[in-house]
Amino acid sequence: MEKKSLGIIGGMGPLATADLFRKIILNTKADSDRGHIRIYIDNNTSVPDRTAAILYGKESPTGEIISSGKKLIASGAEILLIPCNTSHYFYDEISAALPVPVINMVETVCRYLKEKGVCRAAVLATDGTVKAGVYSKAMEKHGIIPVLPDCKAQAAVMKLIYDIKANGVAADAANVVEAMRDMCKIGVDTFVLACTELPLLLSSFSGGECVDPTLLLAKEAITLAGYECI
Amino acid sequence: MEKKSLGIIGGMGPLATADLFRKIILNTKADSDRGHIRIYIDNNTSVPDRTAAILYGKESPTGEIISSGKKLIASGAEILLIPCNTSHYFYDEISAALPVPVINMVETVCRYLKEKGVCRAAVLATDGTVKAGVYSKAMEKHGIIPVLPDCKAQAAVMKLIYDIKANGVAADAANVVEAMRDMCKIGVDTFVLACTELPLLLSSFSGGECVDPTLLLAKEAITLAGYECI
Repeated sequence: MEKKSLGIIGGMGPLATADLFRKIILNTKADSDRGHIRIYIDNNTSVPDRTAAILYGKESPTGEIISSGKKLIASGAEILLIPCNTSHYFYDEISAALPVPVINMVETVCRYLKEKGVCRAAVLATDGTVKAGVYSKAMEKHGIIPVLPDCKAQAAVMKLIYDIKANGVAADAANVVEAMRDMCKIGVDTFVLACTELPLLLSSFSGGECVDPTLLLAKEAITLAGYECI
Repeated sequence: MEKKSLGIIGGMGPLATADLFRKIILNTKADSDRGHIRIYIDNNTSVPDRTAAILYGKESPTGEIISSGKKLIASGAEILLIPCNTSHYFYDEISAALPVPVINMVETVCRYLKEKGVCRAAVLATDGTVKAGVYSKAMEKHGIIPVLPDCKAQAAVMKLIYDIKANGVAADAANVVEAMRDMCKIGVDTFVLACTELPLLLSSFSGGECVDPTLLLAKEAITLAGYECI
């Protein structure tokens, strides 16, 4: 299979971008530097806040995202990735404006859930992703029931996401873990960490399976680039 | 101070590139995505082996390194970084061919050692870096005595570096740690991890201080880009 290069439209946030980059490398079967994938990254820290654009009609992030995509293509990227779940609200507009394939992370996750036979999963995400139904709509299309946190739990998730953006892995996930335990009591056993900041802190949870969209995106990209996953 | 963007000429190796990217983010004082540095990365996995070029006259890596630098500049990078100690053997040629500043990681490390009052330090690096005297010459210029591993220890260091390139952090550092303990017996208490793969596995050592050139490069880049280090 022909080998292809990848381009990561990053900065949403920076640490999540580094996490995707690392997960691609660690999951690629390679025995030397030269066996790895050529990857171009634009850690674009000028992208307007996605949740603010969706909920309050603030400046759209698509201009900056598309501009980054074009820079990456000009460098040589043949397949694009966006390690930001919330920005997938704008997926159709972004994808239509760029002349190379853009992997849809939300669709990748839904396909994974379906293959695993998951019928019902909690969606832990930004207010923007949740209120715009980015995951809910895609999951329902695949016959999977999305379970959303109640108001208090959602506030804890949103606070944690912005804390990770500000303080990195030193942020405190206790309130979100408590919210996850409450969701277990109503029978939820699968949790989609549907914001790329969350897997930085929550890689496992004793009450159920944590699904990491960043990892699934990394594996999908490795395969589409013509490489083997470990 | 005016803010500048960074460009990372990467791929030597990929995991070391991701390590530098992460260390820049974790050490930048920022309270949101938009407070971070714009960083362009080319994970160029076509760069010929640096040690093979230095020791056996094989293909030079400079063509690919300079080509990556030009791509990053075309994207918008204003300061360039090369997270590969061995490639600094070619620093003058690379720097002369590129119209923006390229941070010299080896000089950055030597200045740090001098500021800390270190008179003598072990250099753990590839055969190429050691035999070409990449660190030894720079350290001597600053009045610091380089201590090089004996043949058996050097072979262990080189093996570990290629193991990390092939197997990531699952590689076994036991032989190198033993070699470091032997060096302690002759009074060495500072170890420069002078290959960007080594800090991926050896962040601390009970017998002395490990100096991480990747971390020093990250901090130098943050400052030169006009941002504050944490």
